[in-house]
Amino acid sequence: MASPALPEISKPKIVDGPGGYVLEDVPHLTDYIPDLPTYPNPLQDNPAYSVVKQYFVHVDDSVPQKVVVHKDDPKGIHFRRAGARQKVYFHSDDVHACIVTCGGLCPGLNTVVREIVCGLHHMYGVKKVLGIDGGYKGFYAKNTELDLEGGYKGFYAKNTVYLNPKVVNDIHKRGGTILGTSRGGHDTSKIVDSIQDRGINQVYIIGGDGTQRGAALIFEEIRRRGLKVSVAGIPKTIDNDIPVIDKSFGFDTAVEEAQRAINAAHVESESFENCIGLVKLMGRYSGFIAMYATLASRDVDCCLIPESPFYLEGPGGLFEYIEKRLKEDEHMVIVIAEGAGQELLSQSIQSTTDASGNKLLQDVGLWISQSIKDHFSKQKMPINLKYIDPTYMIRAVPSNASDNVYCTLLAQSAVHGAMAGYTGFTSGLVNGRHTYIPFNRIIEKQNKVVITDRMWARLLSSTNQPSFLRPSTNLLSNGNGSQKSLDKKVTH
Amino acid sequence: MASPALPEISKPKIVDGPGGYVLEDVPHLTDYIPDLPTYPNPLQDNPAYSVVKQYFVHVDDSVPQKVVVHKDDPKGIHFRRAGARQKVYFHSDDVHACIVTCGGLCPGLNTVVREIVCGLHHMYGVKKVLGIDGGYKGFYAKNTELDLEGGYKGFYAKNTVYLNPKVVNDIHKRGGTILGTSRGGHDTSKIVDSIQDRGINQVYIIGGDGTQRGAALIFEEIRRRGLKVSVAGIPKTIDNDIPVIDKSFGFDTAVEEAQRAINAAHVESESFENCIGLVKLMGRYSGFIAMYATLASRDVDCCLIPESPFYLEGPGGLFEYIEKRLKEDEHMVIVIAEGAGQELLSQSIQSTTDASGNKLLQDVGLWISQSIKDHFSKQKMPINLKYIDPTYMIRAVPSNASDNVYCTLLAQSAVHGAMAGYTGFTSGLVNGRHTYIPFNRIIEKQNKVVITDRMWARLLSSTNQPSFLRPSTNLLSNGNGSQKSLDKKVTH
Amino acid sequence: MASPALPEISKPKIVDGPGGYVLEDVPHLTDYIPDLPTYPNPLQDNPAYSVVKQYFVHVDDSVPQKVVVHKDDPKGIHFRRAGARQKVYFHSDDVHACIVTCGGLCPGLNTVVREIVCGLHHMYGVKKVLGIDGGYKGFYAKNTELDLEGGYKGFYAKNTVYLNPKVVNDIHKRGGTILGTSRGGHDTSKIVDSIQDRGINQVYIIGGDGTQRGAALIFEEIRRRGLKVSVAGIPKTIDNDIPVIDKSFGFDTAVEEAQRAINAAHVESESFENCIGLVKLMGRYSGFIAMYATLASRDVDCCLIPESPFYLEGPGGLFEYIEKRLKEDEHMVIVIAEGAGQELLSQSIQSTTDASGNKLLQDVGLWISQSIKDHFSKQKMPINLKYIDPTYMIRAVPSNASDNVYCTLLAQSAVHGAMAGYTGFTSGLVNGRHTYIPFNRIIEKQNKVVITDRMWARLLSSTNQPSFLRPSTNLLSNGNGSQKSLDKKVTH
Amino acid sequence: MASPALPEISKPKIVDGPGGYVLEDVPHLTDYIPDLPTYPNPLQDNPAYSVVKQYFVHVDDSVPQKVVVHKDDPKGIHFRRAGARQKVYFHSDDVHACIVTCGGLCPGLNTVVREIVCGLHHMYGVKKVLGIDGGYKGFYAKNTELDLEGGYKGFYAKNTVYLNPKVVNDIHKRGGTILGTSRGGHDTSKIVDSIQDRGINQVYIIGGDGTQRGAALIFEEIRRRGLKVSVAGIPKTIDNDIPVIDKSFGFDTAVEEAQRAINAAHVESESFENCIGLVKLMGRYSGFIAMYATLASRDVDCCLIPESPFYLEGPGGLFEYIEKRLKEDEHMVIVIAEGAGQELLSQSIQSTTDASGNKLLQDVGLWISQSIKDHFSKQKMPINLKYIDPTYMIRAVPSNASDNVYCTLLAQSAVHGAMAGYTGFTSGLVNGRHTYIPFNRIIEKQNKVVITDRMWARLLSSTNQPSFLRPSTNLLSNGNGSQKSLDKKVTH
Repeated sequence: MASPALPEISKPKIVDGPGGYVLEDVPHLTDYIPDLPTYPNPLQDNPAYSVVKQYFVHVDDSVPQKVVVHKDDPKGIHFRRAGARQKVYFHSDDVHACIVTCGGLCPGLNTVVREIVCGLHHMYGVKKVLGIDGGYKGFYAKNTELDLEGGYKGFYAKNTVYLNPKVVNDIHKRGGTILGTSRGGHDTSKIVDSIQDRGINQVYIIGGDGTQRGAALIFEEIRRRGLKVSVAGIPKTIDNDIPVIDKSFGFDTAVEEAQRAINAAHVESESFENCIGLVKLMGRYSGFIAMYATLASRDVDCCLIPESPFYLEGPGGLFEYIEKRLKEDEHMVIVIAEGAGQELLSQSIQSTTDASGNKLLQDVGLWISQSIKDHFSKQKMPINLKYIDPTYMIRAVPSNASDNVYCTLLAQSAVHGAMAGYTGFTSGLVNGRHTYIPFNRIIEKQNKVVITDRMWARLLSSTNQPSFLRPSTNLLSNGNGSQKSLDKKVTH
Repeated sequence: MASPALPEISKPKIVDGPGGYVLEDVPHLTDYIPDLPTYPNPLQDNPAYSVVKQYFVHVDDSVPQKVVVHKDDPKGIHFRRAGARQKVYFHSDDVHACIVTCGGLCPGLNTVVREIVCGLHHMYGVKKVLGIDGGYKGFYAKNTELDLEGGYKGFYAKNTVYLNPKVVNDIHKRGGTILGTSRGGHDTSKIVDSIQDRGINQVYIIGGDGTQRGAALIFEEIRRRGLKVSVAGIPKTIDNDIPVIDKSFGFDTAVEEAQRAINAAHVESESFENCIGLVKLMGRYSGFIAMYATLASRDVDCCLIPESPFYLEGPGGLFEYIEKRLKEDEHMVIVIAEGAGQELLSQSIQSTTDASGNKLLQDVGLWISQSIKDHFSKQKMPINLKYIDPTYMIRAVPSNASDNVYCTLLAQSAVHGAMAGYTGFTSGLVNGRHTYIPFNRIIEKQNKVVITDRMWARLLSSTNQPSFLRPSTNLLSNGNGSQKSLDKKVTH
Repeated sequence: MASPALPEISKPKIVDGPGGYVLEDVPHLTDYIPDLPTYPNPLQDNPAYSVVKQYFVHVDDSVPQKVVVHKDDPKGIHFRRAGARQKVYFHSDDVHACIVTCGGLCPGLNTVVREIVCGLHHMYGVKKVLGIDGGYKGFYAKNTELDLEGGYKGFYAKNTVYLNPKVVNDIHKRGGTILGTSRGGHDTSKIVDSIQDRGINQVYIIGGDGTQRGAALIFEEIRRRGLKVSVAGIPKTIDNDIPVIDKSFGFDTAVEEAQRAINAAHVESESFENCIGLVKLMGRYSGFIAMYATLASRDVDCCLIPESPFYLEGPGGLFEYIEKRLKEDEHMVIVIAEGAGQELLSQSIQSTTDASGNKLLQDVGLWISQSIKDHFSKQKMPINLKYIDPTYMIRAVPSNASDNVYCTLLAQSAVHGAMAGYTGFTSGLVNGRHTYIPFNRIIEKQNKVVITDRMWARLLSSTNQPSFLRPSTNLLSNGNGSQKSLDKKVTH
Repeated sequence: MASPALPEISKPKIVDGPGGYVLEDVPHLTDYIPDLPTYPNPLQDNPAYSVVKQYFVHVDDSVPQKVVVHKDDPKGIHFRRAGARQKVYFHSDDVHACIVTCGGLCPGLNTVVREIVCGLHHMYGVKKVLGIDGGYKGFYAKNTELDLEGGYKGFYAKNTVYLNPKVVNDIHKRGGTILGTSRGGHDTSKIVDSIQDRGINQVYIIGGDGTQRGAALIFEEIRRRGLKVSVAGIPKTIDNDIPVIDKSFGFDTAVEEAQRAINAAHVESESFENCIGLVKLMGRYSGFIAMYATLASRDVDCCLIPESPFYLEGPGGLFEYIEKRLKEDEHMVIVIAEGAGQELLSQSIQSTTDASGNKLLQDVGLWISQSIKDHFSKQKMPINLKYIDPTYMIRAVPSNASDNVYCTLLAQSAVHGAMAGYTGFTSGLVNGRHTYIPFNRIIEKQNKVVITDRMWARLLSSTNQPSFLRPSTNLLSNGNGSQKSLDKKVTH
């Protein structure tokens, strides 16, 4: 998504405590609307919850961001724990919620939608839940007012659909999103106009960093207008590139599904002489899928990700490594993240003049396939190369069981938060606990593979690939100053 | 595979019978080597076969090629039924067999290899089975003589490997071929020299039409040299483009696996506005995989195959149909066989000048994706297009259960045939029965989807796609002369 | 299903031809209703079929039952080829069809239902298709008259549901049957009364041999009453125990799914000392699933089926074989069909007095597990036994791609037949061709594994299990008289 | 495993720090062997690790057990962080490691074995890794001394096998354990004698709570004898019943695989009238698999686990609930953990006299199936019940991708810990971080579903099942004293 300019974000809510304790709190409707009435949480009368002791989250519950600690460390940054509160700020009959999904597909989207609907319905008795069709622009394009009387039986209208537990009952078994999605289309005023016009007072926004950035703008505008509307984000990124949270939903499913492609590449490469099986995986700015898929598979000889620069020619380069592997084993498997080698790719494209060809070359998988073929053709070394791009086959599968449970908890946390009057927050897992994270923490940077960290070392150890650092940069390992700068580069 | 010139094939063995009965028989070693000794089939003493009545195939058993008959029809062409014979022409201790796999991957290759080895070993007590590494050229490139004494424990040498039941025990659970494969590399004299030098007397050749053509040449050369060597082909073609036989092994598995890609395309297309999910499937000259995958899925709106020409622009063309579907449903799924639209593709390429770009455009999937995007971009109609090429992910899976059983029977049939002294034959399923088919019938043409037949009509009915015949060719349906010419074109 | 007494079936229609040609024809409405009007087949105007030459089946097309022939053989028995006819005996607007599914689950049931509905709708423009709920008894239990006006939007009523392409669009991706099913409940008069009362004139009955027997009774009663109602059967049996046809739909899927259980048994058995992995598979009277699953897997050491008697104790018995395998390999895998060893089981039960225990023991898997444990416990030989019963997990999966295509063709054949006025027939695949088979041929006996045939020999060869024939019965292999009687026993 | 009596465990190492910080440390070889030499960690020279900044874990790194905190909370209990240390206490050439797997199968066993072998080999250059065959008793039963010279090429001997990266290369793709496993067989002296005799100095023990209890005994005996032998446990429990750690390896895979059985039960139940699909899942003392599988599926109407007592008859009982569901929906799905309802089961068994029948009835799935059938048979309400026991099919699958990565990290952590001289520890994930946990914390109690916690409330909310608390116990929800006692019962 084209990122909108960073919003004039309201001042972060920071609460200090003893021993260096810091709570990075999320906004609340009462921050800008005083004297809001509260209601007892309807869960108190729910038979399913009647046996549960202390179901409601204590007002002081928080979760530390950092859990590797020394005994003398200050307590550090914490986030507010997610979960149901004793008191809620909406009467169930008054809630008019809406859900929108934005950006690319990711396993679990439908489960999140389902569980927001079922959570609102079963836990809080909320009946009015509107699905916005086709991403942000569904808020304002081609709307027809709907007659809401008559029971919300899942009737469809242009761009919106009323959702209830029956309509969403089986959707978690399907990939994709029943709401439809799109990239871009964010227009803050039009969206907030639409929210206001429709009388919506809870907005659930499922999407990646661009989308959460948009959600932050919506929250700021709603706050500016003084509306009693909770804005809750659920972070969605198949690439796992959202910071702070442990991992994004759908990630496990994606890594699992990627194994099929790697297996196929492995089988192909073993069956032909001097054969390279090449798999492109998702990851525009972050190589997590490539890294985890490689670690899970154990059949990969080289994993290339955006965070770890590499070069093709000369000693220590990729071609040399490929030649070595083929001479030793007669086959190899390479996994490349879609954002890897972008600087090489853009150099290569600049030197080409034909516009139509270029479009295709922007796909790193096609580009590197051609580069490898050209190189070994020049070397008179016959090779086979089998290129697999499983991207859409991975994105479109339904979420697996563990992602299903994860999505359920994310969705329920978001619902509890919105009902409790929190707003401008993202529902996220931090150190295994569900929390509410302020938007600014989610959108300020991207989560990246830290190539000076242990997980990447594990990967290098498992593939035996070289580090592809040019001799001049090899000083890094000596622990001097240049190391720091690289670290900075890759983690911000 | 670059097809070698058609061999000077020995005259077909045609046997006539009463009522129009014709047997297209396969060659036998005794055709050119008189007075060969015979031995009783060792299966007679095999406990597994001791309860079996009439295990041995009657010498007169044959299978008709045509089973849709009228009561007055002549009996027509028959093939010799496959299976064990009472007498064999090899003593088990004298057999020195070899197996080679050629061409692209296909699910079931390893099962066929396994079952030739196990069939020879368990049924006939044959101990010497050599695997030729990497296709035809493995016969003559880089060979080292092996010391065969010492028990054949699966030791590996450059280009050959001795195979026994233990070595092949689990290979049917893996995709690919443990023998390795390659395209081309056929050199008749060198191959027959190698066969002669090694003392091989049974040659099992697994491969597609090009490979079977090569097998025919090897057979002719062996015959010319008067060697007591049986040459048996097992037809392998994931595209199902080999004639006479019911279907090729691995085809069911391929169609099954293709469903994943179609499902993904369907999910993607439904989740975005005006979205086309496009799947390229195997099928250079024959659209069987595309057709059956479409029929099995029911989510496909358009299936394009080599046998059915189509055009892009103007009334009745593909673009018009796409526009119609998107306006009605907002999404559609297209399946295209890799050989579809080749004449359009070559026109397009000729008009483009850039060499490097062209290489990529030769992929029909990339080409048609670009063509569709360009068209709708000109029309100012925004569309999404998600292109999936699952080729290697399909080819590389292990065979499913039904293909496993099929491969087993194909392999055992080939073994029975070679032991019984037949040669120059292909093991093939005809109307549900295993038969021996003379090479000439297998290589004289390709099996194609007959678009004037009922299966294609079923497909058109299931997708609702237009026939893409230009107005001028629409006369076809009137049953006049031009129909015949088209029929001729597509079936030959 | 409790089999109703064999109906007083109308005389078979046998047509003789030259050269020993015999056509076992199916009944036609005009057999008992003269002067029925005919209509041109609406497919003639269907664009999907307009390019198809000779789409309509020739009136004389037939398919031989036997395809292994000698040159002097008479032509033998043939069945009428299935497919669309030039003339139909129903006007599309007048058709009121119903579909019922009976008996146990089988992969593909929903595909057959879907394709009958879509076939009637898309090919013939038929709009009224009623789904009978819950098997035969759904015809007469708890019916409410439905108001058929208003568009057949898939509304549900007690025991019936109107079906259209939209309602059935995705059902082929689900296991089970959306119509519901039950065993028994056949009451010919009530069913025909219901058919008559509702004005139904095409009845599609999907079920096994018991169900087809019931269909024959319904046909006879309809004929007796002189109603213009076509009765078409689609044979359903996961056990593949229906005679004449090549195989039943869902069988491939079942064999595939059975591999999971066998793999699990194999892994368990290899991980423990002296461990037996035991898998029970479907097959009350016929062991096809067990046999094919064993052949496909290659990890099975012993396959027990109803057709092949075995005994437990003493030389040549099962216990001796198990002990041998455990001593050699420390593990083994046994596959047992549910109907195997029934005579041993009943002896065992008769000698037990406790009623409640007995119920459980009637499951052959539990019984043989206990018998094996008891035996080796007495022998003081510690063993592990892991018993897996995957029955419901196999039955309930959706059909795979090849079964989907098969179900489509079966359903379309049935629709073409009923529209063409044929009745009292089963749609079935014979030697790879779709045919219409008279009910009497389907219900007169069960399809069984012939243990004196080559496929069973292949199985014995692959498992290396003994034949379990007691010494006294071993004469069989000598080809004397007792062999014949056994053969008779197992094939009838 | 029959639990050996709790060992006379050495005093826990507790380290206090400021702000209530407590470190529950693990033993170290230097605790009882003074003046051990240290060596630089060979990873320092490993190219894969050369780019990694601060690869070595800081000596003070620790991870808190509790991460839901209030700002005034004391820092609480911490565990030592796992990972490579700057200094190691073994020279690579001196290491003689062994690995043993005990108890039932669990997905991921082979991955853990593989990664211990590869971790030792690739990271530390350790060449001598012995696999103990068939669980604890493999240490002392039937051993033959092996000649270790000659390269460790994976040769097998009675009860032991030398492992190297090549031998274990593909084992992570298979279920089960290549080492074999067994229950029981723990004999501390014999095992430590064997360890001493063989000169083993690193012992890796993979198993559940009983096994870890045995590992603690082995550690104590080794300590008593003053041997320089590190004992490292890797917790294995498919039931997730080991305390302290976040979850056990294989758990995600098991929950995923359980979905197949639940789906089948759902399909069966929907296809028949008044049909109950009943699935038994693993969980002798803890219902985690049943709970998570239920939450992931959304098709389950009732989930019964050991922690939540239930009763059958009368108001609020299971039968009443079943009847209600069948009357409303005509079908339902029940998931029952194998340890649920044990007190009901034992009452039932005591009242039955026949010994042989009882054995079968001890399976809760068979018992409850019979009880339900008997009840509704008495009620004259015809029902269908389809019982599925997928236990072995779940246990025996290979681990999925996320479990593969998890197993890798567990194994590497154990290796780092043993090399660094730690002993008497279990490698475990705590709040998403790998730690070393002292044995006493792992074996002092079992991890259980807390039915007064929010996850169980989520489950009740998703199934709508009653709490099955008898009226007299319903006071619980009022928050009075009895609640506390129940809580105590289930969490300790």
